[in-house]
Amino acid sequence: MDFQHYFATRASRMKASEIRELLKLLDRPGVISFAGGIPDASYFPAKQFGAAFQDALNSETSGTALQYSISEGFRPLRQWLAAEMGKIGVPCTEDNIMITSGSQQALDYLGKMLLSPGDTALVNWPTYLGALGAFNAYEPRYDKLSINGNRSAADFASDAEAAGGRVKFAYLSADFSNPTGETVDRRGRENLIDTAEELDCVIIEDAAYQSLRYDGEVIPPILALEIERKGSIEECRTIYCGSFSKTLSPGLRIGWVCAAEPLISQMVLLKQAGDLHVSTVNQMAMAQVAEAYFDEHVDTLHRVYSERRDAMLAALVEMMPEGVEWTKPEGGMFVWMTLPAHVDTTEVFKIAIETENVAFVPGHSFFADGSGRNTMRLSFSCADQETIREGIRRLSKVIKTVL
Amino acid sequence: MDFQHYFATRASRMKASEIRELLKLLDRPGVISFAGGIPDASYFPAKQFGAAFQDALNSETSGTALQYSISEGFRPLRQWLAAEMGKIGVPCTEDNIMITSGSQQALDYLGKMLLSPGDTALVNWPTYLGALGAFNAYEPRYDKLSINGNRSAADFASDAEAAGGRVKFAYLSADFSNPTGETVDRRGRENLIDTAEELDCVIIEDAAYQSLRYDGEVIPPILALEIERKGSIEECRTIYCGSFSKTLSPGLRIGWVCAAEPLISQMVLLKQAGDLHVSTVNQMAMAQVAEAYFDEHVDTLHRVYSERRDAMLAALVEMMPEGVEWTKPEGGMFVWMTLPAHVDTTEVFKIAIETENVAFVPGHSFFADGSGRNTMRLSFSCADQETIREGIRRLSKVIKTVL
Repeated sequence: MDFQHYFATRASRMKASEIRELLKLLDRPGVISFAGGIPDASYFPAKQFGAAFQDALNSETSGTALQYSISEGFRPLRQWLAAEMGKIGVPCTEDNIMITSGSQQALDYLGKMLLSPGDTALVNWPTYLGALGAFNAYEPRYDKLSINGNRSAADFASDAEAAGGRVKFAYLSADFSNPTGETVDRRGRENLIDTAEELDCVIIEDAAYQSLRYDGEVIPPILALEIERKGSIEECRTIYCGSFSKTLSPGLRIGWVCAAEPLISQMVLLKQAGDLHVSTVNQMAMAQVAEAYFDEHVDTLHRVYSERRDAMLAALVEMMPEGVEWTKPEGGMFVWMTLPAHVDTTEVFKIAIETENVAFVPGHSFFADGSGRNTMRLSFSCADQETIREGIRRLSKVIKTVL
Repeated sequence: MDFQHYFATRASRMKASEIRELLKLLDRPGVISFAGGIPDASYFPAKQFGAAFQDALNSETSGTALQYSISEGFRPLRQWLAAEMGKIGVPCTEDNIMITSGSQQALDYLGKMLLSPGDTALVNWPTYLGALGAFNAYEPRYDKLSINGNRSAADFASDAEAAGGRVKFAYLSADFSNPTGETVDRRGRENLIDTAEELDCVIIEDAAYQSLRYDGEVIPPILALEIERKGSIEECRTIYCGSFSKTLSPGLRIGWVCAAEPLISQMVLLKQAGDLHVSTVNQMAMAQVAEAYFDEHVDTLHRVYSERRDAMLAALVEMMPEGVEWTKPEGGMFVWMTLPAHVDTTEVFKIAIETENVAFVPGHSFFADGSGRNTMRLSFSCADQETIREGIRRLSKVIKTVL
């Protein structure tokens, strides 16, 4: 049977990720992978979660834990998150917060809420692949966000109009972004708010890695900077998307959106229509573990991941040939590497996995226009320092053969 | 700030549910509610879930339980479900199954996969409110599904074309449906398959209540009947949506879709873009509890809920005035009541809650065209027999005043 002809027009924009196919090659012995962008499972607070699930499922609260619950999310978790947001310059209440099935779901729902077909989304070149995947279903046009760049808001607006829509939002991860590991400085954040004001569009701030700063100066979230200007979150156009997936656990699928109440109310309607609510028992367990243990756990991750980042940067300096450049992230999980323009990293990937058993993610998938063929993403989160050193040794060997 | 003008055109179809507002009135002492369509929390297998979460979070498997996992879903759970589907006439493998965040998410993703704006969805008048909520975001036109009715496939097709699209699917719950409690007989199911063949459209079979049959003859799922005709699930246009929410627990948010592999593959792309995957630890816990305990637990629910259904039907016969009609469900959670045409059940609701402290859901929200103002849904799942009798006494008193 041919099922294709049943599909909506938007389905043509939903393609299997090339990366996903590449990653299937990694299931082989002895491979050193810098490909996955996932936390190291050996550091999950399993005991704390075990105890928290036991507590949620005790005889007094199990009826609540296993039952339907409200679409906004478990109130004590939202209260804890509101207090945490306050600590990073975002005074708000639990009514400014909705719990999502990971921040990926926030991106899906924001695309659904904001994008009519042909509207423009401003994204970095490169940007988080999963954001493109989420937005694609709503058939946007992409334009290249240029923070501190020379394109004016009027340019963005007229190009969007010529394409039959308007600029609905700018999407970015401002701290140690996936895939580049780079951070937008304070001036860049202020410029972005100015541009969004001129365009009268929303800012989607993806803060998935924000807690993972290892050194350098803390820069307030974009939402905090906008609140500084306007006095209240209720006057702000920035929608902040947070996640526990890079800190306590991705397996519980818990993220959150923090924004002005009318935006949260609309998101709650989408959540009701979409999947009703996030797992009740998971929200209860997460609330307990986060309250008792978040700060301590993040300290552990800072120590572990910063050592790995240092090991990777040191090995790169020592072993990579001339002509290869890379970012120096102050946090997160990623180093972004740029090879000379003639090199295609998809070809390098095949050679690397076949001859040296080392893997990374070719960079062009992170570009809305498929450019960036000479780039690659390296993750340092899941290998110990010795393995990182050996992996960079293997990779540099491969790269030397293609230069 | 006015945030409305940022929203996509589809957002105008996403409205707050009137029911949800009404249900807020129920948070008062002494109320007897037949409004909620939820399982009785006192029967959740809390101990079994407690043990299963402990097992998933033990030192050997916690790294898996708390980590990201594949979008298709946890393989052992899909294998168990494939075997269960085999028992009800749907031979298939785990590759025919994807795990969703409740069957609500399956409906959302199916709308997203199938509906272009202006396409037609055939639904019952009345139908599950949450299905309308899920589909609305994709801007369909609705037409009235008439099983065993006199409208031909050609009629449906030409009306859909006149509206600028085509019939993409027929959606229904064939067993003890929400809201009517009614079951489509075998001939009706065969007719529906015939109509779908003629229309060349998909059938979405919402089987949320299918395990909750208390008496009467078991009728094979629509998907099973289509497989009988065609020999293999791979030739079938029926997409089966199952759920654990009415049996083991809604709080874990676990449902599943069972269909031909190309349809599942496309759904997996939507899941990847939408929220990556269902909570890993929840899928592991559900797999363990389902395998060890599903049949025994469903037996308990049959006993409890059938007694409550009997109590409600007996009280209705005894106490309701002439001119009031209701369904006699063979399973599920709902009785559907029809009052004389001049009665508006939204008005009855207000009187009932204010004067007699008894609640139900006014029926018109379940109609895609807002008709059915003289209907109401009564749920018998959450009250014991004595309370049901007292609630029906109160309700009949109110109804007598408005006839």
